[in-house]
Amino acid sequence: MTDDTTEVVRPDLLAPGEVGIVVPHDFVYAQPFTFKSGQTLPGFTLRYETYGTLNGTRDNVVLICHALSGDHHCAGVHSPTDRKPGWWNNLIGPGKAVDTNHFFVVCANVLGGCQGSTGPSSINPATERPYGVSFPFVTILDMVRAQKLLLDHLGVSELHAVIGGSMGGMQALLFGIEYPLFVKRVLAMATTSREGAQAIAFNEVGRQAIMQDPGWNRGDYPRGGGPRVGLAIARMMAHITYVSDASMDRKFGRRKRNTANVEAYSFDVQFEVESYLRHQGQSFINRFDANSYLYITRALDHFDLAQAYGTLEAAFAGVQAETLVVGFTSDWLFPPEQNRAIAHALLRAGKRASYAELSTDLGHDSFLLESEELYRLVRNFLETKSNRVVDFSI
Amino acid sequence: MTDDTTEVVRPDLLAPGEVGIVVPHDFVYAQPFTFKSGQTLPGFTLRYETYGTLNGTRDNVVLICHALSGDHHCAGVHSPTDRKPGWWNNLIGPGKAVDTNHFFVVCANVLGGCQGSTGPSSINPATERPYGVSFPFVTILDMVRAQKLLLDHLGVSELHAVIGGSMGGMQALLFGIEYPLFVKRVLAMATTSREGAQAIAFNEVGRQAIMQDPGWNRGDYPRGGGPRVGLAIARMMAHITYVSDASMDRKFGRRKRNTANVEAYSFDVQFEVESYLRHQGQSFINRFDANSYLYITRALDHFDLAQAYGTLEAAFAGVQAETLVVGFTSDWLFPPEQNRAIAHALLRAGKRASYAELSTDLGHDSFLLESEELYRLVRNFLETKSNRVVDFSI
Repeated sequence: MTDDTTEVVRPDLLAPGEVGIVVPHDFVYAQPFTFKSGQTLPGFTLRYETYGTLNGTRDNVVLICHALSGDHHCAGVHSPTDRKPGWWNNLIGPGKAVDTNHFFVVCANVLGGCQGSTGPSSINPATERPYGVSFPFVTILDMVRAQKLLLDHLGVSELHAVIGGSMGGMQALLFGIEYPLFVKRVLAMATTSREGAQAIAFNEVGRQAIMQDPGWNRGDYPRGGGPRVGLAIARMMAHITYVSDASMDRKFGRRKRNTANVEAYSFDVQFEVESYLRHQGQSFINRFDANSYLYITRALDHFDLAQAYGTLEAAFAGVQAETLVVGFTSDWLFPPEQNRAIAHALLRAGKRASYAELSTDLGHDSFLLESEELYRLVRNFLETKSNRVVDFSI
Repeated sequence: MTDDTTEVVRPDLLAPGEVGIVVPHDFVYAQPFTFKSGQTLPGFTLRYETYGTLNGTRDNVVLICHALSGDHHCAGVHSPTDRKPGWWNNLIGPGKAVDTNHFFVVCANVLGGCQGSTGPSSINPATERPYGVSFPFVTILDMVRAQKLLLDHLGVSELHAVIGGSMGGMQALLFGIEYPLFVKRVLAMATTSREGAQAIAFNEVGRQAIMQDPGWNRGDYPRGGGPRVGLAIARMMAHITYVSDASMDRKFGRRKRNTANVEAYSFDVQFEVESYLRHQGQSFINRFDANSYLYITRALDHFDLAQAYGTLEAAFAGVQAETLVVGFTSDWLFPPEQNRAIAHALLRAGKRASYAELSTDLGHDSFLLESEELYRLVRNFLETKSNRVVDFSI
């Protein structure tokens, strides 16, 4: 197909006010990298995207950190025929809440991921086969350190803000802790300073579904192959935890699918919600690596700021950034009280912190919500002077 | 081992005030039985137990209906060396809330089950192999009709009460609807008149874990074999939905297992909650049939009183029984509002109904709770005159 036959299928995504067409880049770090576990890699690659322009003082940078199943492509499209924009396109763009007319936005696929950054599905140069479970164990701290090396490479002198939801929120908090002079604002949404037993339990069921699938083969499988069934099961279950009872009832309820054509008594798809979940599972296995799923869920489970630093207040003792934590009322994976507790601990540690709670019924994934209220919070937070306490009530 | 070397390991289970040693019986119904689906069996067996004595007027009967993974063995022990009593032993026995000094208690494994009653793992006499997925589709109504045939066989003239939690509660409600003159009291706990999308979704993930396991083989597997991995995954996930975030945090929190002996970085069991869940999965596959799990979860999904009778009020139009519905605050599988709605619909239909809500943090399984408050509710309800409105507030 030549360029002039290319049909723009979603002109809205190329309109002014949109990031438009973006090109991913690879940052190759060619020096040894030591993980928190003590294991090392001779180097790594992070795939990333940027939107907007780095200013002369190199301090207009907003780093976006992605969640478990996200990636570096958080805004814009990859071609004129791309039907689907990046995962946070509603938030990021010219004139949007994260305004690319002012900010230079950076987003990288995490270390351990599978969308271009080095992870268990990458080829181990020593064996010329995928690392599989010989890949070093990855922690949220390793993800953060790798991204800091990318920012150094880009010549960034400070982060105007680091923003993330869910696992992205954990990274944002850790950026504020580990690089206090570098990070001016931390915006963490739908996150936690440590998972409770239920969240670990759901992750463990997903891991077992993957590892008990014969296709897993102790992590040794060809790219694109592997435990597809187990990964789909893990995703279907996890997806339920990302939404809410109310939103599923509103979207699907007990509605049946093409009842006329479906046997009333069968184990095939009967309810719309079944069809939807199967689709979630099937589309996930075409874009995600099962070993990455194991590694990243383990990173989530092990993230525990209080344990790592003694107490949560101790974890935040050196933070210089102004922090905004946003919880969502219907989030039952990382519920509002776990978000509120982060802001409270920051305040107890004498830091500038605020907590905002949004009433939504979309569950954990509410941070991806199209919501003027959320946009206003983000916009206002990015505009705050970095030495002023924001007066949101807690 | 001869009888006199038999060591009683739990003398407390043989003490006065306990049901003690019980023997299961088989009711063989040797006539054709037509399921709601229109499919038929030449007959069926229900395995059941009874505790207490049927009185001369045959009207001191309390029927106990079990939940998805339960069975007929709800009280007492099967031998002096039995370490584990029936699943509702705390509620049923001489002097207990369901007092076997007064009541003749009956409990049967449901049709479609796998603990002695006819189900997909039973041998099809026509093929001399297990029915597998050639077994007729089972509904809650089929379960109820089969149990009514058992009660007829036992010469029961009326039910003093029918009691059940979760799927047992669905059966109890349906008994009151289908046999209005036969049933004097209905006590349904932690139940729903129809599942919402989230409950269907969790069931569907469990079914997919089973059906995508190569061991399932379209339902054709030897007894004791089959999709053990898929069934364990289904059970692990479902177990999370039976408890609560709070109870898991209290019981396990983020406690790690034998930390000294466990590699800090591994996909093996690290957190106590992981070990617990794996145990739940493993012990379940040794006692439950995967096809039964498919059939019974489908029965749960299809149970919809409003759809079956037009409206919920219409469903209850003929009910004569006094009904008590008990919801539990921490139940997020069949939440309190779904229980309350049942009592409200009964009241709107002009029936004698009450709703009680117990504050617990044990989640859906709270109906199995050792709770004096619950015992008192059950005891008082069984003592009510059957023509008097109970004055619990709604």
